Amino acid sequence: MVDRPTINRRRLLTGGAAVAATGATLASVRATEKGTDTAGFGAHRESFHGVHQAGVATAPQAHATFVALDLRPGAARSPREALTAVLKLWTSDAARLTQGEPALADTEPELALRPARLTVTVGLGPAVFDQIGAPHLRPDGAAPLPTFGVDRLDEKWCGGDLLLQICADDLVPVAHACRVLLKNVRTLATPRWRQNGFRGAHGADTDGTTMRNLMGQVDGTANLRAPGEFDRYVWDAGEQHRWFAGGTVAVIRRIRAEMDTWDELDRTSKEMALGRRLDTGAPLTGAREFDEPDFAAEENGIPVIPPNAHIALAHARTDDEHFLRRGYNYDDAAGECGLVFAAYQRAPMRQFVPVLRRLAGADALNAWITTVGSATFAILPGVPTDGYLGQPLLEA
Amino acid sequence: MVDRPTINRRRLLTGGAAVAATGATLASVRATEKGTDTAGFGAHRESFHGVHQAGVATAPQAHATFVALDLRPGAARSPREALTAVLKLWTSDAARLTQGEPALADTEPELALRPARLTVTVGLGPAVFDQIGAPHLRPDGAAPLPTFGVDRLDEKWCGGDLLLQICADDLVPVAHACRVLLKNVRTLATPRWRQNGFRGAHGADTDGTTMRNLMGQVDGTANLRAPGEFDRYVWDAGEQHRWFAGGTVAVIRRIRAEMDTWDELDRTSKEMALGRRLDTGAPLTGAREFDEPDFAAEENGIPVIPPNAHIALAHARTDDEHFLRRGYNYDDAAGECGLVFAAYQRAPMRQFVPVLRRLAGADALNAWITTVGSATFAILPGVPTDGYLGQPLLEA
Repeated sequence: MVDRPTINRRRLLTGGAAVAATGATLASVRATEKGTDTAGFGAHRESFHGVHQAGVATAPQAHATFVALDLRPGAARSPREALTAVLKLWTSDAARLTQGEPALADTEPELALRPARLTVTVGLGPAVFDQIGAPHLRPDGAAPLPTFGVDRLDEKWCGGDLLLQICADDLVPVAHACRVLLKNVRTLATPRWRQNGFRGAHGADTDGTTMRNLMGQVDGTANLRAPGEFDRYVWDAGEQHRWFAGGTVAVIRRIRAEMDTWDELDRTSKEMALGRRLDTGAPLTGAREFDEPDFAAEENGIPVIPPNAHIALAHARTDDEHFLRRGYNYDDAAGECGLVFAAYQRAPMRQFVPVLRRLAGADALNAWITTVGSATFAILPGVPTDGYLGQPLLEA
Repeated sequence: MVDRPTINRRRLLTGGAAVAATGATLASVRATEKGTDTAGFGAHRESFHGVHQAGVATAPQAHATFVALDLRPGAARSPREALTAVLKLWTSDAARLTQGEPALADTEPELALRPARLTVTVGLGPAVFDQIGAPHLRPDGAAPLPTFGVDRLDEKWCGGDLLLQICADDLVPVAHACRVLLKNVRTLATPRWRQNGFRGAHGADTDGTTMRNLMGQVDGTANLRAPGEFDRYVWDAGEQHRWFAGGTVAVIRRIRAEMDTWDELDRTSKEMALGRRLDTGAPLTGAREFDEPDFAAEENGIPVIPPNAHIALAHARTDDEHFLRRGYNYDDAAGECGLVFAAYQRAPMRQFVPVLRRLAGADALNAWITTVGSATFAILPGVPTDGYLGQPLLEA
């Protein structure tokens, strides 16, 4: 049995009456579920166990919460012990919650019953490897990105020892899972930042384009889709570190949209900055979203897609420059909006950074977008049914 | 044609090229929509025009944003002129956006095409009637609630000259409508607070209970449902003020859940505090959620439902104490959660306040919930196709 050091849970588990009540409740909760809970996508589940964690290759759910946490100094006998406890707790909780089952001693078990494709994806920040005395086991890719002159990074959206990425097609299981997962490790780790994001609702359907961001653009047309591409570009194969086989590296960048000035721009100028039509998402040289852009095409000697258009610079120039985009819109209560840009790849420096460098240098869109946060995490390999997240690292 | 005083829009409307571009765009946007946009609930629309505004009797959508604004002093020749301009702009924008059409000179027209039952509901705060020189036309109910000893009101969640309530089953049209509606009145009114809320996703379905709040309780079992109840309890009939016929009064209270202490309570104690079972939502004297509670029932001389249980005090004791509950969960980035409790009634002092008084005095739940915000608004009557929001007031 996993060691569970949090106070609340201990209190529940050691109070006899509470244990009895919880046990009876879980039984009745399950019975209710079996009786009535078959309709609607709330019942849909994503597997938790496997070679890879869910939440990366998983078809993007409508909602996402990204939480970065820092290990609390002195919370356990050592940072390694604290990390091990966190990862065991999260494994136990996520294995249940993603399958529509209450966590152990879940205090709101009814909120767990309709996961709506809930996924929980866990990553480690670069500094953790030093903290646990294993700097030699850090994947090269799990390092902060270089800084770019156009960035305006705010510490409050940067870094973190741990990443908790929680996605579902319904906000109730997201909120519940977030509460449970944070509460159960409270004595061991403190939230550093939290970013909430959304895409179009499940079942609302679209006009057939890729998701749109709040600037009105289709976002993520050039993306990995085939399983072979995931093996090549996303999933680590264990060459550098055997323990990391099946993992990947996530880069979470908070990109603010400068809506006021963007909205002053006419549509033709917006489309020139993007290199795509706003309505269909087609490149300026094509008719449909997925038409291959023709960067050589000219009209009266002038390139149809300007050389500094976003897609001209973002387009892969080598076979390495591919990565998974899995971003979410944000629209905060203060009226600021933008994109929680989430990129997943084996080697950011080879796959993602060359693209970022080109964009930072010349992207016509830079006048209307500002990167205000950046964090990199080693997304742990998937978990076999008898294991826990990070076990190959911690027992390496 | 409605006078449109905002700078950005003026610029667009007076720039010849921009007008031409926007016109062409809208035509192509509509064509695209007709061709491909039939599947999914994104296309579902709620009527904008009618005797009552939508968003009150409307079956609750999955997402809601409540924004309070204050009129900017000196923004127009008079507050009355500023208010008239705001209400004409919102009428024009909401009539289009709710029907899946871009607003006039919409800078992100594609985000408008799938409204997913978008509703925009507009109300006036108590102080506005003085500001426009019409204190005699203020409905009695549109007044701040009395304060209660248990409340811990924070000014940042209280009051406001105007309410903009935006609901839909998809967050993209909510974000887009919020942006358009706030931007287009920016020179006339400033946001004071914004509260985002959610219920279960559209199509996720539930276990057959009413929505659950994040404390795990079914929330809103005792609610108005029949059309006759709406006429009796919600919609003003124009007795006090003819201009207000078809309107109602909204009270928006932000109720924080004290999750840490709530989660320390065992389930039996939680159910005693509520007077209902957590799993089914049934009263402690019944078997199903909608069974009528029996407050006289005793077991061994002890009431089965404690007299200070939430439902015992919230239960209507006179024929007047009924109102519409249409609340939304909130879960903010700082980890605080609770309910944006929205109540709609003709006369809060007669219908809602007696219940609040009982709850404030003795509700067993008070140990685990704290009201931190409160605001009251006169929800304007509905709009005929040739009118604008508030016209009967402003031309009275």
